[in-house]
Amino acid sequence: MSVGSILILPGDGIGPEVMAEVRRIIDWYADKRDLSFDVSEDLVGGAAYDKHGVPLADETMAKAQEVDAVLLGAVGGPKYDDLDFSVKPERGLLRLRKEMDLFSNLRPAQCFDALAHFSSLKEEVIAGLDIMIVRELTSGVYFGEPRGIFEEGNERVGINTQRYTESEIDRVARSAFELAMKRDKRLCSMEKANVMESGILWREIVTEVARDYPEVELSHMYADAGAMQLTRWPKQFDVIVTDNLFGDILSDVAAMLTGSLGMLPSASLGAPMENGRPKALYEPVHGSAPDIAGQGKANPIACITSFAMALRYSFDLGEEADRLEAAVETVLADGKRTADLLGDEGVTPVSTSDMGDAILAAL
Amino acid sequence: MSVGSILILPGDGIGPEVMAEVRRIIDWYADKRDLSFDVSEDLVGGAAYDKHGVPLADETMAKAQEVDAVLLGAVGGPKYDDLDFSVKPERGLLRLRKEMDLFSNLRPAQCFDALAHFSSLKEEVIAGLDIMIVRELTSGVYFGEPRGIFEEGNERVGINTQRYTESEIDRVARSAFELAMKRDKRLCSMEKANVMESGILWREIVTEVARDYPEVELSHMYADAGAMQLTRWPKQFDVIVTDNLFGDILSDVAAMLTGSLGMLPSASLGAPMENGRPKALYEPVHGSAPDIAGQGKANPIACITSFAMALRYSFDLGEEADRLEAAVETVLADGKRTADLLGDEGVTPVSTSDMGDAILAAL
Ligand SMILES: CC(C)[C@H](C(=O)O)[C@@H](O)C(=O)O
Ligand SMILES: CC(C)[C@H](C(=O)O)[C@@H](O)C(=O)O
Repeated sequence: MSVGSILILPGDGIGPEVMAEVRRIIDWYADKRDLSFDVSEDLVGGAAYDKHGVPLADETMAKAQEVDAVLLGAVGGPKYDDLDFSVKPERGLLRLRKEMDLFSNLRPAQCFDALAHFSSLKEEVIAGLDIMIVRELTSGVYFGEPRGIFEEGNERVGINTQRYTESEIDRVARSAFELAMKRDKRLCSMEKANVMESGILWREIVTEVARDYPEVELSHMYADAGAMQLTRWPKQFDVIVTDNLFGDILSDVAAMLTGSLGMLPSASLGAPMENGRPKALYEPVHGSAPDIAGQGKANPIACITSFAMALRYSFDLGEEADRLEAAVETVLADGKRTADLLGDEGVTPVSTSDMGDAILAAL
Repeated sequence: MSVGSILILPGDGIGPEVMAEVRRIIDWYADKRDLSFDVSEDLVGGAAYDKHGVPLADETMAKAQEVDAVLLGAVGGPKYDDLDFSVKPERGLLRLRKEMDLFSNLRPAQCFDALAHFSSLKEEVIAGLDIMIVRELTSGVYFGEPRGIFEEGNERVGINTQRYTESEIDRVARSAFELAMKRDKRLCSMEKANVMESGILWREIVTEVARDYPEVELSHMYADAGAMQLTRWPKQFDVIVTDNLFGDILSDVAAMLTGSLGMLPSASLGAPMENGRPKALYEPVHGSAPDIAGQGKANPIACITSFAMALRYSFDLGEEADRLEAAVETVLADGKRTADLLGDEGVTPVSTSDMGDAILAAL
């Protein structure tokens, strides 16, 4: 019996090779644990542009709306740098986020003990780090109108609009409080309420939602101060909730703190579908890394742990997710390392597919 | 003979006590080096609100327009947290920036050898760091219209507008290229041209301005990637130019990397006045630190080195600025430390005014 449906969108650069390892893991679940998924595959980003002239075809969009989970590799590359804004690879990803209404983007920043020394931060600052950034993903300056480049007098002006409605803030805040309830019950909300009215509304609504979660300790920080505190002592945080643009930057800072970008997954969740499962897209935090694509150097772990997040959030298979994550930890403890994590004595360099083999063996 | 005019705005929290040390240094220049400044003092921020009901009185604004340099301490504090947005302490500072048209905000992030270990980053990552962030300061989402909280259907929506004209980008880019020419001739421009049209225009104009500076090596990064790279290996940068909001966050990250916020100055420069000097405001990067205000714990160095920047950029006294900065380094090398920088063996804890004494003695 099928556990559910998955649409795989490998995308560009290292996307296809890291996704190939995920496919093998999906096959393993069907073979060994009788958990089979209905898998289809399609194009996104530059790969879609090459075939269809757009970074996401309408049929692909329609499929994404129907499945239980979308797994995405990565989009973009220098080949597409000069494309018009409207058909850049990123627009495919942004269309998925917007049309699937994936408002809550979960970006864990976790530091793996075996890799703590890869961080540019001191080991005591980073060891044991485990924070979760909840980034609003369907609104704000990414999608607000008016936007564009306009003539004004005798020059041009570039305009984007930051917009948040009460209900947009409310729903992402709730998802962050829910997560905090399952974790250490501390939530820090970040905006620039000292400079932006949209930040004032953000702070007000988050404070209102907090009444429904009396057990969660809520704090507020200006985003600039938040960025500083993340850099100074990240372990002070449990869950952070912030808007689309601040979340883009803050979650990248948090990810980089851990020193091992190639390890970090993400989940983007929307409202429940008819079957009760949330609309969902899972993708590694790293990009398409065109410079190493096709060489067997890419680290497939972030993509694999993104699939673990799918097991947890889309398919209610939390224990399987734990097991898959534990298999990854075992392999790391064994000293197996892809090219991004070499340099230590006594480690075994492995290729992308060797890493997949090792994780399958550990499972 | 007077070298020029200075308006001192100590502001709130620790502002007055760190500024008191700057005044003593200004007096020293008049006494010992025959460089006397025409100094006046006034209120800004919460202090101005307490007296006038606004965070910057019109007469103060008018004075600021007339002097050669404004020195500002810090604004804000919990006492003013519940004030209406329009009269918050920050609005006083923002009004100065906007009405003086201080479009180019220079934020050096330098790591002092004696203090490198205060950083949360590894010593080899941070030692010798010397980068300059040029932040656009009079436009973007800080000032764009429309802005506010509006009714829409049956809910409210918070709106802010990111706006950049070609000429706004051109002038701040030029100031960054000029700085790069005096430094290592490398400039990195940061925006989100993959998501925001205002970022596309930004990139285009910066690229155009580059033609006038063929010796400067220009690169571009998306702001999220830039934040990552700052965290990973900040020494890869020389000068960074970015917009108001990204600059707010990125310069704070850069400042925190050094581990000693209490050491970092800033200069905000506008167009040349009739006497050829630029409109200018100087302020430490740190905030008003209300928790330690009035206790003699504050570190006056950032405020003092902000005055050194005034000597350099407003009064063409670059050598005096170098001498003042060297005096600060001497005092640090001697082991004198304010409360923010204690913890090492063999250092001498000093108060705010002791630190002022020591710097005067070193001069
Ligand atoms: C690729 C880009 C459009 C995207 C974003 O800005 O959201 C990326 O940086 C991310 O964080 O997922
Ligand atoms: C106090 C505040 C308005 C200000 C800003 O956001 O610009 C501050 O954070 C800064 O960076 O100078």
